[in-house]
Amino acid sequence: MAPYRIATIEGDGIGPEVTKAAITVLAEACGAGTLAFERLEGGAAHYVRSGHVLPEDTFAGCRDADAILHGAAGLPGVVYPDGTEVGNDLHLRLRFRLDLYANVRPVKLLPGVLSPLRAFEGGGIDYVIVRENTEGLYASRGAGVVLRDEIASDSLVVTRKGTERVARFAFELAAKRRGAPRDGQRRVTVCDKANILRSYAFFRRICDEVHAGYPDVAIDYAYADAITVHMLKRPDSYDVIVAENMVGDIISDLGAATVGGMGIAPSGEIGDAHALFQGAHGSAPDIAGQNVASPVATLLSGVMMLRWLAERKSDTALGQAADRIEAAVATVLAERRAVPRDLGGHASCTEVAEAVRRALA
Amino acid sequence: MAPYRIATIEGDGIGPEVTKAAITVLAEACGAGTLAFERLEGGAAHYVRSGHVLPEDTFAGCRDADAILHGAAGLPGVVYPDGTEVGNDLHLRLRFRLDLYANVRPVKLLPGVLSPLRAFEGGGIDYVIVRENTEGLYASRGAGVVLRDEIASDSLVVTRKGTERVARFAFELAAKRRGAPRDGQRRVTVCDKANILRSYAFFRRICDEVHAGYPDVAIDYAYADAITVHMLKRPDSYDVIVAENMVGDIISDLGAATVGGMGIAPSGEIGDAHALFQGAHGSAPDIAGQNVASPVATLLSGVMMLRWLAERKSDTALGQAADRIEAAVATVLAERRAVPRDLGGHASCTEVAEAVRRALA
Ligand SMILES: CC(C)[C@H](C(=O)O)[C@@H](O)C(=O)O
Ligand SMILES: CC(C)[C@H](C(=O)O)[C@@H](O)C(=O)O
Repeated sequence: MAPYRIATIEGDGIGPEVTKAAITVLAEACGAGTLAFERLEGGAAHYVRSGHVLPEDTFAGCRDADAILHGAAGLPGVVYPDGTEVGNDLHLRLRFRLDLYANVRPVKLLPGVLSPLRAFEGGGIDYVIVRENTEGLYASRGAGVVLRDEIASDSLVVTRKGTERVARFAFELAAKRRGAPRDGQRRVTVCDKANILRSYAFFRRICDEVHAGYPDVAIDYAYADAITVHMLKRPDSYDVIVAENMVGDIISDLGAATVGGMGIAPSGEIGDAHALFQGAHGSAPDIAGQNVASPVATLLSGVMMLRWLAERKSDTALGQAADRIEAAVATVLAERRAVPRDLGGHASCTEVAEAVRRALA
Repeated sequence: MAPYRIATIEGDGIGPEVTKAAITVLAEACGAGTLAFERLEGGAAHYVRSGHVLPEDTFAGCRDADAILHGAAGLPGVVYPDGTEVGNDLHLRLRFRLDLYANVRPVKLLPGVLSPLRAFEGGGIDYVIVRENTEGLYASRGAGVVLRDEIASDSLVVTRKGTERVARFAFELAAKRRGAPRDGQRRVTVCDKANILRSYAFFRRICDEVHAGYPDVAIDYAYADAITVHMLKRPDSYDVIVAENMVGDIISDLGAATVGGMGIAPSGEIGDAHALFQGAHGSAPDIAGQNVASPVATLLSGVMMLRWLAERKSDTALGQAADRIEAAVATVLAERRAVPRDLGGHASCTEVAEAVRRALA
């Protein structure tokens, strides 16, 4: 079997170190010749050098690959004339051009990681947020207007097509994923402000229509404000949450905060033909190059990538490799073999990766 | 001195019981003849009876009063033909018609209340969220469109005037409020997604302009997603946070969750000429009429009302009454004299109010 082509953009700040750490572990877990990592240029530093944040051959490499692994992008002060960040643009361009419509953010408390929530120290948080990733308030990116320096406006756009596909993604995920809420009932929670805005009410109604095709999965609803309270009080009641882009952006980070922070939060941005995986954290330029960043989020993003590839290519070996990496990360953290700084330890980026590699067994 | 006229809408669900409880304490603390509570009709039940959620004489009573005290509004199933909730509409109409542009949500951990955040069990959370309350995404309420059942859209509108006034409110508050962040530096944190949308970048820029008039108050910035992480990790670093309406709606509830939940979270919606105070919770129809609701949020909203009136009318006695009520609530909870159910106790609504009244001393 030909190796899987993994387009790899290391990016800026801690991007290169966490990506390299993840690659070592992924390569070891999958066995020689299974994954072919293709290193591509892109990001804020590349923009400074070349004037391009996402060069066309990088885009083509991503488009033609089996999956994309991204470190992180963005450097302080590297902004466009309008003040927006160049690093974000890399990420957002790939999102929109490759139509990565489902931003998947697992919220899972790993053994050995202490939740900041007293009531869930011992575990019990395991759900997934699916954020619509191509429209909603983000449809307005670059298209908002400022009139006479007096009035600024942007548009929130929710389409039937865009909502149907992300809702289907959420229901499919609820039907098949392993974790389960406390009551064992497979469920999609639709998060919106349908009480205030027609476009959110429309989003909710389309989710209801899609739900009709999933009789075994329950549906319920939470307003975007109220859900923040529930996410602290009874995170164990969630299974899959689906939300409009901006609401999803906000609650995804909140979810990450409840299970140990951005340094362990993986993400997958998934479309019908392409998918990009990266830690949910930024490029953290303040600690870049010091070998102190945690590679855990990137590693777990790699696990998501393997599972996505495994399902798509019906390759059970890849799925097993994913399970082994996830178990190894859990072991390393639970037994405190190598704990990164953001989780209260002292292990370097390479030490964490090396400990995980050894634990793969 | 003529008594202050307090327009009082008890509303629905637990609204009447928590309002009555608060009135008992407010009246006792301020002394006979200081406050004249004028009971006005409004809310979902009233809508069912009369077809009006906010009768014109209730609106006039609110407009002509010195301040407004509101219980809570809304009943399950009482919705308009378009499916939106009638109860919310009472609240939103008052907000817009009386131009209550600053929604003030203190996030303060009271002695005796356990934060769900392990690291802040012992206290240390005391900041205020100021939510812009009349425009932003809420400008689109009732005005969004759905085209051919295919595309729905709403508008996010940020005006210079609307932002200037709420930013000034936030800086004034930071300059004068009692609590302080850990480092003692007075500060306004502007919360937005200026990295994505022009209207949020405009919001930030106007805040910067207003900041120029407050050299003693620092300014910093947080993206709406990232702030949720900080609010769990280092809530003691905040002083005043100012945010667009929808972002403010979401993070206000998150703030409340970190200090004990909606049952203790007060709110003030303040304009240049009018102000409305109410607990941040809803009408909780499931527990209505059972005398088990917590009156704490409404009580503390009454404290905010007294302070607002005290400043406006230069009436130091009112300010002292506010201090006494706040201290009494703290004593009752810290000494566990009467702990409501949502804080882990068994005291009824009237028992909590009675214990606070006794502790006024
Ligand atoms: C990088 C940035 C454009 C992005 C967003 O706002 O979507 C980030 O917050 C995320 O969640 O991926
Ligand atoms: C009642 C409802 C209209 C309201 C809002 O969305 O503003 C509520 O969530 C609030 O925070 O006051």
